Amino acid sequence: MTLQYALELIGTFVFAISGALAVREKEHDMFGAGFTGFITAIGGGTLRDILLDSYPLVWIGDIHFLYAILTGILAAFIFPNLLSRLRKTFFLFDTLGIGFFTVLGVEKALSLGVRPEIAAIMGMFTAVMGGVIRDTLTNEIPILFRKEIYASACLAGAVIYLVLDHLETDRNYNLLISMSVIISIRLIAMKYKLSLPTLD
Amino acid sequence: MTLQYALELIGTFVFAISGALAVREKEHDMFGAGFTGFITAIGGGTLRDILLDSYPLVWIGDIHFLYAILTGILAAFIFPNLLSRLRKTFFLFDTLGIGFFTVLGVEKALSLGVRPEIAAIMGMFTAVMGGVIRDTLTNEIPILFRKEIYASACLAGAVIYLVLDHLETDRNYNLLISMSVIISIRLIAMKYKLSLPTLD
Amino acid sequence: MTLQYALELIGTFVFAISGALAVREKEHDMFGAGFTGFITAIGGGTLRDILLDSYPLVWIGDIHFLYAILTGILAAFIFPNLLSRLRKTFFLFDTLGIGFFTVLGVEKALSLGVRPEIAAIMGMFTAVMGGVIRDTLTNEIPILFRKEIYASACLAGAVIYLVLDHLETDRNYNLLISMSVIISIRLIAMKYKLSLPTLD
Repeated sequence: MTLQYALELIGTFVFAISGALAVREKEHDMFGAGFTGFITAIGGGTLRDILLDSYPLVWIGDIHFLYAILTGILAAFIFPNLLSRLRKTFFLFDTLGIGFFTVLGVEKALSLGVRPEIAAIMGMFTAVMGGVIRDTLTNEIPILFRKEIYASACLAGAVIYLVLDHLETDRNYNLLISMSVIISIRLIAMKYKLSLPTLD
Repeated sequence: MTLQYALELIGTFVFAISGALAVREKEHDMFGAGFTGFITAIGGGTLRDILLDSYPLVWIGDIHFLYAILTGILAAFIFPNLLSRLRKTFFLFDTLGIGFFTVLGVEKALSLGVRPEIAAIMGMFTAVMGGVIRDTLTNEIPILFRKEIYASACLAGAVIYLVLDHLETDRNYNLLISMSVIISIRLIAMKYKLSLPTLD
Repeated sequence: MTLQYALELIGTFVFAISGALAVREKEHDMFGAGFTGFITAIGGGTLRDILLDSYPLVWIGDIHFLYAILTGILAAFIFPNLLSRLRKTFFLFDTLGIGFFTVLGVEKALSLGVRPEIAAIMGMFTAVMGGVIRDTLTNEIPILFRKEIYASACLAGAVIYLVLDHLETDRNYNLLISMSVIISIRLIAMKYKLSLPTLD
C-alpha cells in the first residue's frame, strides 16, 4: 500500500513534467506550461472520477498530489534543457506511468461496482485522457488518435488484468503481468515503429 | 417503453458509426476512429447527466449501450466504404437521431426537476454535444457553430415540446410533433442550403 | 449580499457579451455566437462546481443567470458594432469581472471545505476556464496560455485573499484588496505589454 502510494505520487510528478515540457516549442509562457503540466497530471483520473461520481477527486482530497505536481512543474522550469535531453528516459518513465495508472484505474472502477467492460475503459481513460485534454487545449489532434500504439496498449492490459482477476490470480502477479503487457506493447511498437491501420 | 429503449440503442449505434466514419479522411488510426465513435455516441448524454448530477451515467449503468456502440464501431471498421456511400441515408438517420435524443433529453431533465428553460438546453445538449466534443478532439471548429441549422433546430423542437407539454398535450402526439419539427427544419435547411446569419 | 448577487448577474452578462463577440471574425453563425457566449459565461463556475461536486450548478439552480446570459447574447446580436467599438471599456469590465469571480470562487471552494491551496486553484478556474473552453471550442490555443498575464494575476489575487483571510482580515477589506491586486496586475501588464517568460 505504501509502495503503491509512493508510485502514484511519482507517476503524477512525471506526468506533470512531461506535460509542462510538451509545450516547449509552442508559444506558451511559463504559466501556460505549468497549467498544461497540471492538466496532464490530473486529467485522466479526474475524468474517470467524474464519470463514476467518485468524490472528492483524488487531488482535491489529498494535497500531496498537488505538491507532487508543483514539484514536477518546478523541475521543468529549472531544468528544461536537461529534462528535454532525457527524452528517452522520460519516454520510459511515461510508459511505466501509463501501465501503472491503467491498472490502478481498473481497480478503482471495479471497487466502485461497475462492470468489467466499463472498468477497462476507465483504466484506459485514467492513463491517457490527461494527454488527450493536453493535446486538445494546445490545439493538436490528440496523439493517441493517430500515431502511437498507446491507448490500445492500455486497453489490452486492462482486459488482461480483468481476465486474470476473473481467474482469481494473486493481485501482485496480476499487476505485474498486466502492466508488463502494456509496457511491452508500447516499447515494442515504438522500437519497430508499428502502428494500427487506418480506416480505409 | 420497449420501443423507446430499442430506439435509444439504435440511435446510439448510428451515432457511433457516424463518429467513427467522421475521421476517415484524417490521420486517425483504427483505435482513434473507434474512440471518436465512442465519444460521439456518449458525449451528449454524458455531459447532460454530469451537469444535472444524474448518476450512474446511462452507458455505465446499462451495458447494452456499450455493446450498441461497439457494434457500430465494428460495422464502421468492416464496411467503411459501403457505409460512406450511404451518406445520404446516414444523414437521414442522424437527423432522426438528433430529433429523438433532443426530446428524450428534455424529458429526462424535466424528470430531474429542473425548470423548462434549462430542460430545453439539456435537450439540445443531449443531441449535439457528442458531435461538438468529437469536432473539438479532431481539431475542427465544431460544425454546429458554423454551417448547419442543426442545434438551433433542436432548440426549436425542445421549446415546442415544452409548450405542448405545458398545454397538456398527450405525450405521444407531443413526441411526434416536436421530433417532426426538428427533423423538418434540418432537412429543409439542408435541401435549400439555408443558414443563419453571422454576427455583423 | 444583495450587492454581491447583483454583481454576479452583471458579471455573467458581461462575460456572455464578450463570449458572443469573440467569434465575430470567425465563420460562426448567430447560433454559434450565442452558444459561445453561453459557454464563456458559465464555463468557469460550472467546471469548479463539477470538480467540487457542488450541485445544483449555479445557473441550473437559479434561472436568473440564464436570463442574464440571454440578455448579454441579445445585446451582442443587436449592437455588435457599438459593443466592439467599446473594446477598451469592455476590457475594463472583463478585468473587473475576473477579479470578482476569482475571489468568489475562492470563497465558495473554502465554504465547501477544501484546503486553501485547492481553493486558490478553484478561484482561478472560476475566472478563466470559461475563456479556455471558449478558445478550445473555437479552435484557438487558449489565450491564457500564451499572451497575457491573466490567469497568473488571478492566482496571485487568490493567494493574497487566502493569506489575508488566514490573518483574519475583515472580509470586505479582503475582497477589496485581493480584487485590486488582480485588476492592477492585469491592467499594468496590459499597459506596459509585460508578459511572463517562456520555458527556454
